[in-house]
Amino acid sequence: MPLIVQKYGGTSVGSAERIKNVAKRIVETQREGCHVVAVISAMAGVTDNLIKLSREMSADPDKRELDVLLATGEQAATALTSMAVNSLGVKAISISGAEAGILTDRFHTKARIANISPKQIQELLEEDYVVIVAGFQGQTAEGETTTLGRGGSDLTAIALAGALNADACQIFTDVDGVFTCDPRIVGGAKKIDEIAYDELLEMTGAGAKVMQSRSVEFAKKFGVEFEVRSSFKPARGTLTKEETANMEDVVVRGISLDRNQAKVTIDDVSDVPGVAGRIFSTIAEAGIIVDMIVQSVGKHDTTDISFTIHENDLDSAKKLLMPVIEEVKAAGLVTKGGVAKLSVVGIGMRSHSGVAARLFDCLGKAGINIQLISTSEIKIAVVVDERDAERAAQLTHQEFGLAALAPTSAATRPLGS
Amino acid sequence: MPLIVQKYGGTSVGSAERIKNVAKRIVETQREGCHVVAVISAMAGVTDNLIKLSREMSADPDKRELDVLLATGEQAATALTSMAVNSLGVKAISISGAEAGILTDRFHTKARIANISPKQIQELLEEDYVVIVAGFQGQTAEGETTTLGRGGSDLTAIALAGALNADACQIFTDVDGVFTCDPRIVGGAKKIDEIAYDELLEMTGAGAKVMQSRSVEFAKKFGVEFEVRSSFKPARGTLTKEETANMEDVVVRGISLDRNQAKVTIDDVSDVPGVAGRIFSTIAEAGIIVDMIVQSVGKHDTTDISFTIHENDLDSAKKLLMPVIEEVKAAGLVTKGGVAKLSVVGIGMRSHSGVAARLFDCLGKAGINIQLISTSEIKIAVVVDERDAERAAQLTHQEFGLAALAPTSAATRPLGS
Repeated sequence: MPLIVQKYGGTSVGSAERIKNVAKRIVETQREGCHVVAVISAMAGVTDNLIKLSREMSADPDKRELDVLLATGEQAATALTSMAVNSLGVKAISISGAEAGILTDRFHTKARIANISPKQIQELLEEDYVVIVAGFQGQTAEGETTTLGRGGSDLTAIALAGALNADACQIFTDVDGVFTCDPRIVGGAKKIDEIAYDELLEMTGAGAKVMQSRSVEFAKKFGVEFEVRSSFKPARGTLTKEETANMEDVVVRGISLDRNQAKVTIDDVSDVPGVAGRIFSTIAEAGIIVDMIVQSVGKHDTTDISFTIHENDLDSAKKLLMPVIEEVKAAGLVTKGGVAKLSVVGIGMRSHSGVAARLFDCLGKAGINIQLISTSEIKIAVVVDERDAERAAQLTHQEFGLAALAPTSAATRPLGS
Repeated sequence: MPLIVQKYGGTSVGSAERIKNVAKRIVETQREGCHVVAVISAMAGVTDNLIKLSREMSADPDKRELDVLLATGEQAATALTSMAVNSLGVKAISISGAEAGILTDRFHTKARIANISPKQIQELLEEDYVVIVAGFQGQTAEGETTTLGRGGSDLTAIALAGALNADACQIFTDVDGVFTCDPRIVGGAKKIDEIAYDELLEMTGAGAKVMQSRSVEFAKKFGVEFEVRSSFKPARGTLTKEETANMEDVVVRGISLDRNQAKVTIDDVSDVPGVAGRIFSTIAEAGIIVDMIVQSVGKHDTTDISFTIHENDLDSAKKLLMPVIEEVKAAGLVTKGGVAKLSVVGIGMRSHSGVAARLFDCLGKAGINIQLISTSEIKIAVVVDERDAERAAQLTHQEFGLAALAPTSAATRPLGS
């Protein structure tokens, strides 16, 4: 009998009514002849409420206790889901992350999975139970409850699907799948049927908020295929998997936009070892996340270093860097907020030449100035002015033929051409 | 170093502010030089809310899952309390009922404690932790979470105090202690300083709602002294303990009133074996709780059987008994709602004669008709009309000299006289 691991997020179990719908879907899957393991998140709002309470106890609540506290959210949701499945006449049982055999390291509130021994789940499946697992949580070797941090329930599902060698892993969420671009920006954005791990990773890193990178990385590492789909609609979603030969037929899989970015440029840095390290360690120590880093050749043994950060971090970055500028004898610091990063992602780029030129040409013709460029094997990212960002996404989406229905014509071609 | 087990009920931890007050009290106790084990209930309202959610899942929610669900309430409250204690600079750690070593039978939602192995608590105390234990819950030998039913957190505290051989067990609640009578009925009701297990048991069985009988029985069985006191005031409460010789100096310790009762009388029942069994098994099978049972001598080898039940159960009791009346050839069934049971309790009755006479006389002089009488070694219970109930309590309270301040004089004497 095939085994399906399903994951239902907080909005999917956000009310009694929704939990009952989830139970129905679980029962349908089981009645189609599958074993089902369902990973459940806390009901929407519950975790936030618990965090709020914890902050009233202490400005910096003990992390071990925070994990005990937060784990109750998933525990309650699994018990309720199990009751709902039971009441539909199907045997179900709820288990904690610890009982699911999810062993983690000791980093409370952001533990990493160290090992999985899903023996108890396997025994319960053999007894024909639907097994309802509390997502987002695990246990240390010492028996302490831990939580897995943001996106933890996705990780639980993918890790269990891998450990159980499941036939399918379905991530039910409040979106229909992964789109060629954010549909709120590009009207003709289309749901992607299949995407390679690396493509989703580049899009996730570039601001597409379907999944956390770590879950995708975990899936890639252990070869776990998973489908992101809506818990409110019956339609299939997006299957993420190892790349296949025919995936390369599509040059660009999708486009992501990262807004509220800032660009920082340090001019005429001495081109000697250690300088870049000095700059970026200063930034990193302040907990500021640096995204693109571009180093260009300057004059007379000097170089320009540019990078992007979130606009909110710009003021502190400036303050931190001023003394460093002097120290490394750079000519100056130029910063610019109000920019956006546009990323064009596709494994087809490897085999298709001229993608970058086509992108630059498309933006150039529209009078959109490119302020920074960075490329990986399967991604081209450009920084443009925030006020050009949406137009840039729309034009690029059209240029690479991603639209579901061609609004204008010539530049658009069907997916896969 | 002395060890104190404290228990804080749902209203004591009913808000963030109250949890912080509980934390302060725990820290004060620790700073006075004591080891502290604190048993915590779910925040007021949380358990009811979870039960409500479970009923939305199913009319008859799976009991195993109900226990998983309900246990989260105490788990969250312990984590929050632990955070609050930690933030006051005192090392605290929260543990579940299972981790506290509370082993129960498998009767989900009303499990009984089978054994306690508080090894983990002892180790944590040795490391100078304040140990915050989730009340109301335990674990079966198979590792399944169970809950202990109503009053379960009191039971957790008393059982742990016994197993840990604690120097004191304090039950913090929203009342100041056990009173000579309900202060809402008798203005001069006085807090009792010390009470014997048996006295509290009789008063609890007679409607004084300070503690569930099972916790008191457990305490009696294992000789655990405990103090019921207010979590909102610093004053000492009521200490419950083995009876001592001087406790007998007080004839009556307290008076309880059970309202909304109904009296059922079956007339002229054949005085042959098995008839009473037939009657009361019919009632018991319907889940109706019978309180007083009185059998009096009738005419010609027949007898009258009277008993009291809650008024809400009167209609179903009547329906159930009609066929039985015929079957056992009784003369008839007489029922009467709107009665109350007044209980006068005190171990002093054993050594003082004439207590019953004094009670009957007192009520008789006031024109209050006694409809049923039942006595135990340390209790006299009478059924009176509901409209006489409060007056009966006030008069009896005065007659036996229980008032804190003598409102009229002569009949009142100081406690212990």
